[in-house]
Amino acid sequence: MPNRVKAAVMVEPGRIQLTEFPYPKIPSNAALVRMEMSGICGTDKHMFKGETKHPGGQDTTFPIIPGHENVGIIEELGPEATALEVEDRKLHVGDRVVPICDVTCGQCYICRSSYGFTTSCLRDVGYGTTLSCKDPPHLFGGWAEYMYILPQALLAKVPDGVPPAAAVMTEVLSVPFCAFDKAMSPYALGKEGFGPGDNAVILGAGPLGICHGIMAKMVGAEKIIVVGAPESRLELAKKLCADYTLNIDKIRDPQERLQEISDLTDNHGADLVAECAGVPEAVPQGLDMLRIGGTLIVAGNYIDVGPTPINPQKQILSKNARIIGVSGQTAASYAGSLRLIKRFLKTIPLNTMVTHEFKIEDAERALTTAISMESMEVVITPE
Amino acid sequence: MPNRVKAAVMVEPGRIQLTEFPYPKIPSNAALVRMEMSGICGTDKHMFKGETKHPGGQDTTFPIIPGHENVGIIEELGPEATALEVEDRKLHVGDRVVPICDVTCGQCYICRSSYGFTTSCLRDVGYGTTLSCKDPPHLFGGWAEYMYILPQALLAKVPDGVPPAAAVMTEVLSVPFCAFDKAMSPYALGKEGFGPGDNAVILGAGPLGICHGIMAKMVGAEKIIVVGAPESRLELAKKLCADYTLNIDKIRDPQERLQEISDLTDNHGADLVAECAGVPEAVPQGLDMLRIGGTLIVAGNYIDVGPTPINPQKQILSKNARIIGVSGQTAASYAGSLRLIKRFLKTIPLNTMVTHEFKIEDAERALTTAISMESMEVVITPE
Amino acid sequence: MPNRVKAAVMVEPGRIQLTEFPYPKIPSNAALVRMEMSGICGTDKHMFKGETKHPGGQDTTFPIIPGHENVGIIEELGPEATALEVEDRKLHVGDRVVPICDVTCGQCYICRSSYGFTTSCLRDVGYGTTLSCKDPPHLFGGWAEYMYILPQALLAKVPDGVPPAAAVMTEVLSVPFCAFDKAMSPYALGKEGFGPGDNAVILGAGPLGICHGIMAKMVGAEKIIVVGAPESRLELAKKLCADYTLNIDKIRDPQERLQEISDLTDNHGADLVAECAGVPEAVPQGLDMLRIGGTLIVAGNYIDVGPTPINPQKQILSKNARIIGVSGQTAASYAGSLRLIKRFLKTIPLNTMVTHEFKIEDAERALTTAISMESMEVVITPE
Amino acid sequence: MPNRVKAAVMVEPGRIQLTEFPYPKIPSNAALVRMEMSGICGTDKHMFKGETKHPGGQDTTFPIIPGHENVGIIEELGPEATALEVEDRKLHVGDRVVPICDVTCGQCYICRSSYGFTTSCLRDVGYGTTLSCKDPPHLFGGWAEYMYILPQALLAKVPDGVPPAAAVMTEVLSVPFCAFDKAMSPYALGKEGFGPGDNAVILGAGPLGICHGIMAKMVGAEKIIVVGAPESRLELAKKLCADYTLNIDKIRDPQERLQEISDLTDNHGADLVAECAGVPEAVPQGLDMLRIGGTLIVAGNYIDVGPTPINPQKQILSKNARIIGVSGQTAASYAGSLRLIKRFLKTIPLNTMVTHEFKIEDAERALTTAISMESMEVVITPE
Repeated sequence: MPNRVKAAVMVEPGRIQLTEFPYPKIPSNAALVRMEMSGICGTDKHMFKGETKHPGGQDTTFPIIPGHENVGIIEELGPEATALEVEDRKLHVGDRVVPICDVTCGQCYICRSSYGFTTSCLRDVGYGTTLSCKDPPHLFGGWAEYMYILPQALLAKVPDGVPPAAAVMTEVLSVPFCAFDKAMSPYALGKEGFGPGDNAVILGAGPLGICHGIMAKMVGAEKIIVVGAPESRLELAKKLCADYTLNIDKIRDPQERLQEISDLTDNHGADLVAECAGVPEAVPQGLDMLRIGGTLIVAGNYIDVGPTPINPQKQILSKNARIIGVSGQTAASYAGSLRLIKRFLKTIPLNTMVTHEFKIEDAERALTTAISMESMEVVITPE
Repeated sequence: MPNRVKAAVMVEPGRIQLTEFPYPKIPSNAALVRMEMSGICGTDKHMFKGETKHPGGQDTTFPIIPGHENVGIIEELGPEATALEVEDRKLHVGDRVVPICDVTCGQCYICRSSYGFTTSCLRDVGYGTTLSCKDPPHLFGGWAEYMYILPQALLAKVPDGVPPAAAVMTEVLSVPFCAFDKAMSPYALGKEGFGPGDNAVILGAGPLGICHGIMAKMVGAEKIIVVGAPESRLELAKKLCADYTLNIDKIRDPQERLQEISDLTDNHGADLVAECAGVPEAVPQGLDMLRIGGTLIVAGNYIDVGPTPINPQKQILSKNARIIGVSGQTAASYAGSLRLIKRFLKTIPLNTMVTHEFKIEDAERALTTAISMESMEVVITPE
Repeated sequence: MPNRVKAAVMVEPGRIQLTEFPYPKIPSNAALVRMEMSGICGTDKHMFKGETKHPGGQDTTFPIIPGHENVGIIEELGPEATALEVEDRKLHVGDRVVPICDVTCGQCYICRSSYGFTTSCLRDVGYGTTLSCKDPPHLFGGWAEYMYILPQALLAKVPDGVPPAAAVMTEVLSVPFCAFDKAMSPYALGKEGFGPGDNAVILGAGPLGICHGIMAKMVGAEKIIVVGAPESRLELAKKLCADYTLNIDKIRDPQERLQEISDLTDNHGADLVAECAGVPEAVPQGLDMLRIGGTLIVAGNYIDVGPTPINPQKQILSKNARIIGVSGQTAASYAGSLRLIKRFLKTIPLNTMVTHEFKIEDAERALTTAISMESMEVVITPE
Repeated sequence: MPNRVKAAVMVEPGRIQLTEFPYPKIPSNAALVRMEMSGICGTDKHMFKGETKHPGGQDTTFPIIPGHENVGIIEELGPEATALEVEDRKLHVGDRVVPICDVTCGQCYICRSSYGFTTSCLRDVGYGTTLSCKDPPHLFGGWAEYMYILPQALLAKVPDGVPPAAAVMTEVLSVPFCAFDKAMSPYALGKEGFGPGDNAVILGAGPLGICHGIMAKMVGAEKIIVVGAPESRLELAKKLCADYTLNIDKIRDPQERLQEISDLTDNHGADLVAECAGVPEAVPQGLDMLRIGGTLIVAGNYIDVGPTPINPQKQILSKNARIIGVSGQTAASYAGSLRLIKRFLKTIPLNTMVTHEFKIEDAERALTTAISMESMEVVITPE
């Protein structure tokens, strides 16, 4: 047991500082996780740039240890911490776990209604996003050697055989897990929702986009088209999920992209479009790509970057379109995502999405690399 | 059997002309309906104003006999016309029927997929909207003494005891019938869709809005709030469905209306908002009114009147909102709507929505009255 | 504050004994409810007869204070008991509340999965059913002057204007609330589930059956047929929900009843059948009554009274039937049920279901009356 | 063009006779298909054994040319036969097609309601099952050189690259395609229906069972357990879909099999059980295997072989179980199934299910082979 715990702290937008905190004392109903890997998410990039409004309107609470896409090993487990596992499985010191990144109250209107999306909890706090490291026990983010697990937090046990580089994608994959749960429900008689044998267009070739493409593949999509850039990301998309890719750096005219989608879908349009681009104009472009009765998932616009014009008649009513907003995920979806990661590990090796690893000391360089589009998933590893 | 059939013909936008057509000869697989009542819909007003684009992109095919909200009596029934009833019930001369206003091909991609929305059929033609009266047998609209029933058209038998003034509302009511079918599915555990005991906000106090409020009441909504104008329409709304009304002529600031909705819904926001206003800006306003996880129906923007800015993060993603476009209805929904009209005739007398009746000769004056907001449902009656 | 609290204790099957317990001391995170009314449910009758197996396989834990259909007034509220209300509303001493009758762990596989049915919780305990009164604070059932509210229990606030005799029906009504939630989801295009305008057949004319008929009426059923006995119950059914009733004492041949249902449904069969009879043979009889694609709710067979033969081909496969088992309800459904009770209080006065009131001292006579079929809802009132 | 067409005719139960029919004249709205392959289905075996009642109660209409799992090449196409393709795609002479095996009226209550299951049509006729070969043009079954396509029949175009031995499985695969459509809808929050990451138990290791296992794999099931016999079938199951198999010839005690399922599912039980065994007792056994809230598909009991005892409380209500009867499929599902067959051709080579081929002359021997359990899919090929 070390005396001090190293962490990368975002002191304010644009500034990251290596900091040491005391090794915490774990009460009987809490736990401690030794970090193996922590991903860098679009949200971290936004916080770094000073875009700090999270869904629900919370502000990032600087100083903060970023990192909410996490995987690690249970180092300490309080004797009364018997209900931490998200499916109520037994936990032991030494188990590999993915912490659910949001901690919900379990008592507000939203939690009580079984709605389930953690970020929708009225008193939601988030590891790495809205839990500051100012006060003890400090360790509320993944870019550190250890992470402190609050009594009301949850952990998802990682199945045997799933390596850290695959498990670190759990949080990202659980977003399309929930998005497809909604998009596929109901798909009675094949046409009122997304179902096996349907096609899917993914707008955005970053980790969130690829994970949506992967989920589409896992549930039996017939044809998956990823629209994004740069070419290096599209190459990885092809390896993991895409049957076709459209490079927006090369096909710059949205009308031309629309025509390509139409050609690839028997002139019907897309059964499903998933907006994972994080720019408002992807929403109307996605609506144009839909077939009559199609579904648009809005998952990429996680941080507020403004409005965009939409034509209600042409783009929503005439198409009998369905639009589904997805802010994050449910806690339960972590366990489902991990089952799928394991199931498809050989045919869809999710771990290959991790293209860059950095030490805690190099967190700022890690962020810059993540912001450059040449990487896919960038992670921080303590060792 | 008369020699001549009177009809009000819209020769071009802005011009209506009383015309006489020959009484048609009915082939063995077709039928003829003697009109009792034909409503004036927002679509008719748009066509009159020169806004002529229907969903699917079809143009109004002038000259045309308007009238697609129809009820009448079977005057002639060809001996081989045995499959005209939408639920395969036996028909006889003298039966009161509501003709399904769109005639679908039954063979295109959309029809084959069981998707069912008639206006989505790729070869859809519409009585009173896209079937011209230029060529024989001419009688393809309800503002006339008789209507010709094509072999591939459908009729819904009116249950005993439902008067023409209630039956004429069938086509309008079938829109929310289908909209709620979508909005209520699935509402697992009360929170993923609209269900009994939930509240509903209706934007727009015309026939379409009131019918959405009525449908909400029929399915057990706890609280129904109608937002619109003028006061006379809101008064009728109160009689038929509304627990609360907001007069937009008096509360002109959208923020203020938003606050009222919040106050009326325990600060949660609306479980369901139905856009029945026909103006694009009602869509973002409706999204602002939704609770987390709420549903927005877009049913009013039937004719293209342009775009409106929407914020994907604040108005869709953060709210985990669902948006459902509804263009018209299915043929089957006519029969369901008629069952509900009969069921609720005493407690929700739909016939009271008909506020004005005009003769065929006075069709233009009827239209002007409909365009003025002082009326609710305006109908044309041959006698 | 009295020194002693009166309660009717079921010491063992067949024996009820008036008992006095000490008035409990309420810790800071618990509460105490002064009872207004407590209903007698089929489960109580089964326990009295020695049929003691609850769903999940738990046994009744004698001695027990029965009573799980409860309404009362908050007498004491611990200062830290801030999260007791099921929709997170503020509670005060003097508020009328309905206690959720099951207390779930919130941590087991079932609770975590958002499945929500309280009786399905792997560590579920039930007021009046599986919480013994052997140990302090004893007061774990409604047939008493006071009821002790555990810190992890939940209460549903009763809306203003809902009298105790209506509120006492909340627990029963929440069963069909959840059953219809399932049965109506999805009902895409009117035919894959139960929807407005559809017909419903209810097997069983006791409180559970009537409540299913009432829920069908609340959600817009076209025609409701209640099958049961004796005539007095069917008379009440007619007042509250039934359009037609079939008296099984008079029409004893199941084939004859089947024919009646067929005649009443255009020869299609029932869109929905709800088994609320508590006898196994009602299940195959209900399946015979279904139309192709219809839905059977199994809600009455709450206590195990053995098997019954079913023909999978004729009664399930050929009909494309759907069968839905419903064991109890979710906590959230109490709040929804109460909203509906209030909403329909004038047109469907639920309080008229209470036909008999007894003092705690007369609990055994109350039970006998409930077992005789001449009563509908029998309740215990302390005063 | 030959003068005579060879066919295997089932003259009555137990007797098959090689017959020659005149080569038919094709009217302008019909078509002719030159057969490549026709499968032997459980239904054919039942008909041969004298079990002749189809769903809906129709009788086999002897003499008959069996064969409803068909694939062939368009030999003739009438110039007015422009709407035969199930997704309205253009057809040409020389195209490989799978005929939809049932021909529906399109006008009855069921067809009009968009319910879609072809065998549920009130006037349904079936190639190879209820269309006799007594009268011209005779060729209404697949065990022949040619098949006559009625004007109101439908064909599904086979995608390029799908060989006949895979396409011949389309009709079988479309049953689980529809079954999973129902079972997965809705699966809101992962627990109310079957979804990706869930486990599936298949009862029955014949073609229908394997196809259900394959469909489960296609939609992302975590773990698939096939229960059946003999070992040769289970071996193929393992190659195509099964993670685990239970041989019922070796584990003869249902309680022991139940224990195995429990062990393999974390003691939760199966998320989904698909009954594809064709014996009534598989239904209660499947219910016992379900987890709380699980779903049972009843697809195997296609021919009536009697009732079985079921305990409504233990096996349906206490489990909050859902049971879904599936009789055949929709026409649209053929196209979806073919997309999936192509999509997964390399990883799930459906063509390997065809274990035996016989000439038309050897149809009776083909049947005997199919009845012996040592084969999987047995087909008839003209050449």
